[in-house]
Amino acid sequence: MKSSPNSDGSPNSGSPSPPPRLPLVAEERVRYAETDQMGVAHHRHHFVWFEVGRTEFARRYGFPYLEIETRGLRLVVVEAACRYRRPLLYDDVVLIHAGLREVSARKIVFEYRLVKKADGELAATGHTVHVVTDARGRTSSLPEDILRLVKSAVTPA
Amino acid sequence: MKSSPNSDGSPNSGSPSPPPRLPLVAEERVRYAETDQMGVAHHRHHFVWFEVGRTEFARRYGFPYLEIETRGLRLVVVEAACRYRRPLLYDDVVLIHAGLREVSARKIVFEYRLVKKADGELAATGHTVHVVTDARGRTSSLPEDILRLVKSAVTPA
Amino acid sequence: MKSSPNSDGSPNSGSPSPPPRLPLVAEERVRYAETDQMGVAHHRHHFVWFEVGRTEFARRYGFPYLEIETRGLRLVVVEAACRYRRPLLYDDVVLIHAGLREVSARKIVFEYRLVKKADGELAATGHTVHVVTDARGRTSSLPEDILRLVKSAVTPA
Amino acid sequence: MKSSPNSDGSPNSGSPSPPPRLPLVAEERVRYAETDQMGVAHHRHHFVWFEVGRTEFARRYGFPYLEIETRGLRLVVVEAACRYRRPLLYDDVVLIHAGLREVSARKIVFEYRLVKKADGELAATGHTVHVVTDARGRTSSLPEDILRLVKSAVTPA
Repeated sequence: MKSSPNSDGSPNSGSPSPPPRLPLVAEERVRYAETDQMGVAHHRHHFVWFEVGRTEFARRYGFPYLEIETRGLRLVVVEAACRYRRPLLYDDVVLIHAGLREVSARKIVFEYRLVKKADGELAATGHTVHVVTDARGRTSSLPEDILRLVKSAVTPA
Repeated sequence: MKSSPNSDGSPNSGSPSPPPRLPLVAEERVRYAETDQMGVAHHRHHFVWFEVGRTEFARRYGFPYLEIETRGLRLVVVEAACRYRRPLLYDDVVLIHAGLREVSARKIVFEYRLVKKADGELAATGHTVHVVTDARGRTSSLPEDILRLVKSAVTPA
Repeated sequence: MKSSPNSDGSPNSGSPSPPPRLPLVAEERVRYAETDQMGVAHHRHHFVWFEVGRTEFARRYGFPYLEIETRGLRLVVVEAACRYRRPLLYDDVVLIHAGLREVSARKIVFEYRLVKKADGELAATGHTVHVVTDARGRTSSLPEDILRLVKSAVTPA
Repeated sequence: MKSSPNSDGSPNSGSPSPPPRLPLVAEERVRYAETDQMGVAHHRHHFVWFEVGRTEFARRYGFPYLEIETRGLRLVVVEAACRYRRPLLYDDVVLIHAGLREVSARKIVFEYRLVKKADGELAATGHTVHVVTDARGRTSSLPEDILRLVKSAVTPA
């Protein structure tokens, strides 16, 4: 992962090109419960912020995740990765940027950037890959109407 | 991990060779608190099992993490990734395998495999990358005695 | 707690008297990560919302918790209790009301009410008791200036 | 709750009588992820240990919670309380004692004691109250066979 800059699936990690323009979708404060004894947000919480990001992204683009579940579908996480650049501290405000990188009827790739609001510094980047299943976990695919909405929300590279 | 070779950046993924022989270091049951409304362990918890795995790995090989912290050092997570193969359910017993893939005085790479004890099926694989810092988060390096222990614990490929 | 309707400190539990006037201090959405396989927010998360509530309460009344820690003090939780009235579901917006019930230089009691924004229904009530310690966990007391601020923030019964 | 020693619902808090003899049902290590920046296990985790305790208690006494759920029932938490006596630190081994205090077809009360294995000191006590519901959250009651098992597991005072 270190020698090959693109190997984490993040299209531009290690690249000299400008950072991707991912929409700002949510703002969260680091809770005391999210810190660990190192005095920083524990690294598992970044995946929760990513999740908050895709919830808000989906709501904004017209396909709320709650509705997807109501229609009997699930977006199951099959891959998740994060690179940590700067620690996030208790009470820091975190800007959550999220974007859609790949969409098909069966698979969706989200990308994220977490930014410390106080100084605009990048705190973390990451991505998650999701497959579509039914409520019992069997492979399925997005219905045409949702797929159209999701496709229209793809973030330009 | 099998069809798409190196995309998780895990040094030996995609290889035709047999799966890595990572030592079994811990056994944990999925707690109710770790499930989500999809009825499976939420994907962030795998990173906690990885952490339990490296705690037990380090204890077994003679460099308990608690002692590293007592000596004023931290192993800060700078990268974490997981691939989810099979869902883990409430009350499942999870076998945590962990290994050391790369070691230098400043950086350590751990690798993990989570296996469902009941049927021996692989549930997840992943890795974490750590850098050595002092208690204030400034780059540091492992003292010679600890480095020797850590190096001797590297899991053969 | 069961025989005496008011014993959780919430003046109107089971009582015909009007609800206590606890200030609304924060608004949070239930995250997917906070649900469990019962399909509701897991009961431990209410204590995190309480914590968010006291963080925002303290900020609003001029004694941000971060500053208290910077001055070498901690407010250690010695007791926490919650009564759950209605389940909170994924994506529900939760209104967090918090108030100060008792204050001395060594001990503080917070009280909370969680309300489901969509229908105004009470979801949970609770309280936490905190003692003042120094950074090493030894009993301590609030300095005069902070104590004055905290006392002025006590919520009238 | 503060002035009256028994007000936390724990039958013997504040009492001069000997501590209740709750069976030891589980042993857990404090995970790094469970600490906060105060350097101790965050107070919400005690409720997870309580939950692990009742899972193991129920398994031991022949009514595994998984089976209760399979039969379409849920034990919903309607009240939870904890008193924190001593901090639990990273890597501490915690002995979880759990007992059943009250049982009826519709309601169950569990009680807990967390003990630090290294020195045998009491770290926390607490209780949870559960009501029986069906899978949709409607009030229900335990079937006769389960109720018999649960009743036979009541911990003598």
